[in-house]
Parts: sequence; C-alpha cells; structure tokens
Amino acid sequence: MRHNSVGGSKVSQSPPVLGLGFLGMGTVGCGAARILLSHHDVIAHRIRCGLKIVQVAVRNPNKERAVSLPKAIYTTDPFAVVNNPAVDIVVEVMGGLEPAYQCLMTAIQLGKSVVTANKELLAKKGSALLDAARERGADVFFEGSVAGGIPIITALKQSLAGEKIHRIVGILNGTTNFILTRMARDHQGFAETLREAQEKGFAEADPSDDVEGRDAAYKLAIISAIAFGFRIAVDRIHREGITNIELADVRYAEELGYSIKLIASARKHNGQLELRVHPALVPKTHPLASVSDNYNAVLVEGENVGRLMFYGQGAGGAPTGNSVVADIMDAARNIVYGSRARIVCTCRPNPKIRPIDEVESRFCMRMDVLDRPGVLAKIASVFAHHNVSISSVVQRESHGDTAEIVWITHPAPYASVKKALAEISDLDVVSRVRPALWVEPD
Amino acid sequence: MRHNSVGGSKVSQSPPVLGLGFLGMGTVGCGAARILLSHHDVIAHRIRCGLKIVQVAVRNPNKERAVSLPKAIYTTDPFAVVNNPAVDIVVEVMGGLEPAYQCLMTAIQLGKSVVTANKELLAKKGSALLDAARERGADVFFEGSVAGGIPIITALKQSLAGEKIHRIVGILNGTTNFILTRMARDHQGFAETLREAQEKGFAEADPSDDVEGRDAAYKLAIISAIAFGFRIAVDRIHREGITNIELADVRYAEELGYSIKLIASARKHNGQLELRVHPALVPKTHPLASVSDNYNAVLVEGENVGRLMFYGQGAGGAPTGNSVVADIMDAARNIVYGSRARIVCTCRPNPKIRPIDEVESRFCMRMDVLDRPGVLAKIASVFAHHNVSISSVVQRESHGDTAEIVWITHPAPYASVKKALAEISDLDVVSRVRPALWVEPD
Repeated sequence: MRHNSVGGSKVSQSPPVLGLGFLGMGTVGCGAARILLSHHDVIAHRIRCGLKIVQVAVRNPNKERAVSLPKAIYTTDPFAVVNNPAVDIVVEVMGGLEPAYQCLMTAIQLGKSVVTANKELLAKKGSALLDAARERGADVFFEGSVAGGIPIITALKQSLAGEKIHRIVGILNGTTNFILTRMARDHQGFAETLREAQEKGFAEADPSDDVEGRDAAYKLAIISAIAFGFRIAVDRIHREGITNIELADVRYAEELGYSIKLIASARKHNGQLELRVHPALVPKTHPLASVSDNYNAVLVEGENVGRLMFYGQGAGGAPTGNSVVADIMDAARNIVYGSRARIVCTCRPNPKIRPIDEVESRFCMRMDVLDRPGVLAKIASVFAHHNVSISSVVQRESHGDTAEIVWITHPAPYASVKKALAEISDLDVVSRVRPALWVEPD
Repeated sequence: MRHNSVGGSKVSQSPPVLGLGFLGMGTVGCGAARILLSHHDVIAHRIRCGLKIVQVAVRNPNKERAVSLPKAIYTTDPFAVVNNPAVDIVVEVMGGLEPAYQCLMTAIQLGKSVVTANKELLAKKGSALLDAARERGADVFFEGSVAGGIPIITALKQSLAGEKIHRIVGILNGTTNFILTRMARDHQGFAETLREAQEKGFAEADPSDDVEGRDAAYKLAIISAIAFGFRIAVDRIHREGITNIELADVRYAEELGYSIKLIASARKHNGQLELRVHPALVPKTHPLASVSDNYNAVLVEGENVGRLMFYGQGAGGAPTGNSVVADIMDAARNIVYGSRARIVCTCRPNPKIRPIDEVESRFCMRMDVLDRPGVLAKIASVFAHHNVSISSVVQRESHGDTAEIVWITHPAPYASVKKALAEISDLDVVSRVRPALWVEPD
C-alpha cells in the first residue's frame, strides 16, 4: 500500500492504492481480473481507494489468457507473490491443497489479507487458516468458494448473524444439476449426459468430485459452519453421488411429481447437526425443484426470517469473479479503515453430528419383482416388520414375468429403510432392488 | 458505550457493551427487540460485544407489547433517546417523516450510528441523511427498509459493489402480492380480496400506500440508487397501482400463461435510467411469477453475475426484525473496530431518467366492442397506424351484441400504445377500453 490507513470520516486527498497478488490466473482468476480492469473506476469510487494487480503466479506465464496483463508481472513462484511487499491482498484462485495452503498461511502470518475461492482448501484446512487469521488479526474472505455468484457467505456472516438457523438446503453443484436437468428433459442416460456436459465445458475431464458429491460436501461444510457456528469436518457429512441414478429413476420421479436433484442439506435436530449430500426427490412445488441447468440455489430456514432463498449462477469465471472482486473490495475497506479482522470466525469445535442411520425421511424405492400373486403383500409385510409405513406405491404393467414396483414411504429412520431393503433383496421373488432415494419434504 | 474502541486483532478482556435507543416499539421494533433478547448470547459471541436496549421512545408507554422491557426505559420523548449519552446506536422503527427525520439528523450530528427501517423517510429524505452521515463519519444502516427479511441492501452495497447492474425487477410489496395471488386463486374481485387482506392483517386500514404503488416506489428508489449509483427522486418513478385491476384481467392473464404482479423495475438504457412501478403480466416461466402471497423477491441482472434472485418474507416483525438486528450488529462492529462510515453513500446526483413515453414494452389491452363484421380490422388498423405490432389476439364468444377482445402487442413505445388506445376508445364500435397493462419479458 502506498498510503497510511485512513480512519474516521474524512478520506485523504490522494486515495491510497492497494496491491493485489494473484495465485493462479485460470477461469476464476481471469474473471476477477477482467472485472478489476474494466470496472476500475466504479470500484475505486465505491471503496475510495485504488486496486492494482502487481504480481501473478501461474505455472505457465506464456499461456494465452482471457485477460491482458503486463508480461512482467507474471512469475512461476507463488511464494514470491505472497512475500512481495507491494502485495497487500493475496487472491488465491489456483485451487488444490498445496501450495495454496502454505501460501495463504504465509500471507496470514505476514498480516496480509487473503481472498480465496478454494472450497476444498477451506473445507479441509479452513480451521487452521481461520484460527491463524484471528490470532494474527488478518482477514480471510471466501465468497467465491460456494455457489459462484450467489452471495451466500455474506448473507450468512452478516445478514443472518443474529438469526438462529434451523436448516439450509441447497443445490450447490452446477455440473450435477446440469446432468440431472438434461436427463429429465432429454430422456437420456447418465453416461451420455455426462459426456455432453464435458463437451460443453460444464463438467471436468475427471468429473468425480462433482458426480460423487465431494464438491457439494465441501461447500456444505463451509456454509453450515457459518450458519450453525460449528467447525464441520467434511468427512462427517453423509455423502452419496449421482453416478447410479438411472434414467428410469428420473422418469418415475417426474411421473410422481418430483424432480431429482443433488441436494446438500444441514439441519439442527435436538442439539445435533444432520449433514448430508445426496440425490433426492424434490416435490415440484418446492422452490428448489425449478432450479435447473447449471444454476445453484440455497434455501435457508430460520427462526425469525422464515424461508429465504438465494438463486443464481453457481460457477463460471464472471459470476465467481464478481464474488472474488466483492471480497477484494471488503478486504480493501478493512485495510483503508484499519478494521482488519472485523468479522472473524467464531465457530466452536466438535459439533454433535446426528448419526445418518437415525435420520428420518421419506424414501423412494424401486425394484423388479416376479409378477405373481402375493408378491406385493410379501414385500409390504417386510416394510411393516421394520415399521416403515408406505405412503404410495405404483406397480407397472409387467414385461414378461417381471413387474416394476416403486414405493414411497412415510418418514422413517434411514437404518430401518436400509434393513427392510436388504431383507427384501433377499426374497426369491425379488430380482433387483435399487438403492433407496431420499425424498425432500415440501 | 462503556468501553473504548478496540482495533486490530485482539479483543479486550471485558467485552464492551453498546447502548441501543429505540424510536418506536411496534411490530418491527418488537420483532427486533425480541431477537436481541432471546439471541443475546449468540449475538454477543459473534460481534464480540454486548448490546443493551437502554431507552425506548413510544407514544403510549402503557400499551401492551409483544416484548417485555423494563417500564423505566420507556419515554414519550424521542429526542431524549437520541440525546441520551448511553445510547450509541439509534434504532428508528417509528415510521413517517417527522419526528423521525429530525431525530436521525440529530443522532448523526452527534456521531451516533443509526439503523432505520423507514422506507418513506429514506426515499424522501435519504440524500440529506446520507450526506450528513458521510460528512460526520457516522453510519446509517437500512436493510429493514426494503423487502423485510431479504438482505437485498447488503447484497447490493457489498456483494455487487464491483458489478455493473443492468436491471433490477422485484416484487417489493407483500400486501398487493397477497391480493393479486388471492384474486387469481380464489377468483374474487379486488375490493373483496382487499377486505380479506385487511381482516388477516396483511393490509392496513388505509391501504393506499400499498395498493397505489407508493410503498413499492419508495423501495425501488432506495435499491436502484445503490444498484446504479445515482440518487433517485421518488417522484421520477412512473407509478401505477393495482386498484383498477379487475378479476377479468387476472383470469385472462392466467389463461394466456401469465400472472399479474405489481412489479418495481429499474433498468439502465443508453445512459438513462428507466424507473417504473406498475402491475404487469409476468410469464409463468419467469422466476417472479411463482412468488406468491406476501412473499417478496428481487431479481438482479448484472454484466458478470448474470441473473441473481433473492426470495423471502417481505414484511412482518420477525423477518424485518432480523434485518434490523443484522444492521445493529454491523453498526456495533464499526464502533468496536473504529471503522464507522466504512461504507458510505457514493451515489451521484441527478441521473438522466428515461421519459416513460419512450419506454418500449409489450402491452396487453382488453376492450369491449360491437360484435359486427369489420370491427377487428378497424381496431387493428389503428394499431398499425401507430406502428404498434400485435403479437396475439383473443376474441371471446359475444354476450348479446358485445364481444371482448384481448390484444398483446410486440414491444412498442408506451406513448404509441396510449395514443392508439385513445383513438380506439373514440371509435363508435368500441364501448369500453381498459388501460394497457405492461407485459414483462421472459
């Protein structure tokens, strides 16, 4: 920074200029950098200081990029950026755990402000970073890490800071939402739709983080920590992916009045936290059911605020870039006003996590059975034996001697449903049982 | 405040306690006070200071209220609260222009932080208050003034501070949305539905601010100022209410695939701002179409962020109380961290407003005509003469010798549509022409 902090009411004559150091200049980095360059005047007017990108660390400085920066500011050494005395704010958009973690730790220890869009880093190492930042009086901002352009972190950290939140449920992964939307709309299978998503750039070459729900789990760990005030270890989140969702699942769901969505859900229940990421049947009347393609949405339910929903672009350089720029502006304000660490992590450790087997929900189950008298009764009696009460059942005309039955239960503990299902799959009249799918309440 | 400001990283051993002075203790005041009392611990933990309601000004201290506060803290003199040295943050939830304006001006001049939920005051006198606050280095927060529990002000002030916003369109008035939803659902007329809304407490005894669109215009003035960076005079907003929406309008709209909503819309167009509040036909596929009852929603379209939507409870003591509490917490942080006036109004004066007559939109028009040959052609030729191109037309079976025709146009200037309509209503074959209704694009 080329100017001392200014506090109080008056802004000095020559506004300060803060130096930004970028770690990474990929999709999100270019998105943020383009906004910083093209909106420079409006940004400077609003935060009453200038922002200048002074150094950028990338693996290959010669690569063609969507933003035009002077060649001289590129380096291949991320620590050179972090340690550069002209860098006031370190913007980490490189992704991955290392060297991102060591770089940000170093930046924090130097008292620099940090902006990151790295959900994996935050979900796995956020506690250490936020503890260090609080200790050092440094700032860590991470709006870009969850739900792209949707300002859910700011909403939770500030606008809902006085609220007791009961529940958050969101569609936090655009890739899987794109796939599930297209499966329902175009009546094509998972593998084919995934290939289409990869061709369009909506899915990575290695899509496993997305389709197995890890990406959504990272994001859920981040937002549920803020919402409920507890550090969340990502491996405490029950997680199921969408890789074995079949076209038939999607079509039955549509027919019964549901959309299948990969949802991320966190709920307080008798002092315990219930945390899960899985595909679910969402009633068509539910606000999340109409969130399609690569859009994201987060529904928050609180004691006073009632139902609040945030909806927008969940990924992409421009929307996520906007979130990164908003964070940079907030970081800059704190430097200019001498109020670094104005909002710090106040999460407590070790929340009580509700065992997933105890969680009660409605479930949907699909199975192939022999089409002969007494089969339906036999299966129904297994459900009854496990105290799983059935809300609706649909049996299709049989193909040959096999009939397909779809059951939807009343709320029942997950463990009971799994036990009933295991017992049912052992029946000699049952040829194939699909895993139980969760059903969201209205 | 019983403690000096603390800056930097370390929080002092005994956390400070800030004094709150309330002006008014009605629905929103009680909502906020209840949250402050019942969530005291979580709030103190998160902002690292205590908050205490030290004085409350009301007209009648003996009135039964939804929150229990010590009798001794009530006064009938709002200036006593403002001038009370134990009051650090003045919370104005009394409504109306005076004495609210004088009270807040005094508070600002004393350097106190101000939180208000008073949309009329902000829309009419906001410029003077925000100028004084910037000059004095004081804080004015007003999340509760627009859209109840939806954190749209914070989203615009912070999360979208680096964005160039193209357009905001919202459902900002819960009363009219309740009325329009019920007209569509229960097939009952405006007057009857308004009575029902009044009985249920969703409409005031004098509903004119709501049904004539003034309340929505106040709110639009506030959010479009932040979004576009210009002070907005509320009388520059084109405004039409819902008082002459007939059941037949609602039914035709439904039949044609639209919902009628009172929308508040602000758009940048060639360096001019287009500002309007009016009922409109919103396509059923539009995200605002499914916002029903007393819910509010705000759709923001920006250069980078794309489409962003915020949805929630637009009124009521608890949701709006949550917004007021969030503001109090933000004000408290700025006091504790010595960063008052961290975000000030940077709006410029005198935006160029696009004359409403020049605004292009699709319109819907309904008229009663004599059911005889050549009438349709005669009317169509008037539209053609004014260069108003017709997108669709529905003519009903006639009752007696009168037929009803509903026209939907392609985009055309408002002036052309009004001129065509005036000419059409002078035709001897036309017995009744309803005012043109705006049609929202997808």
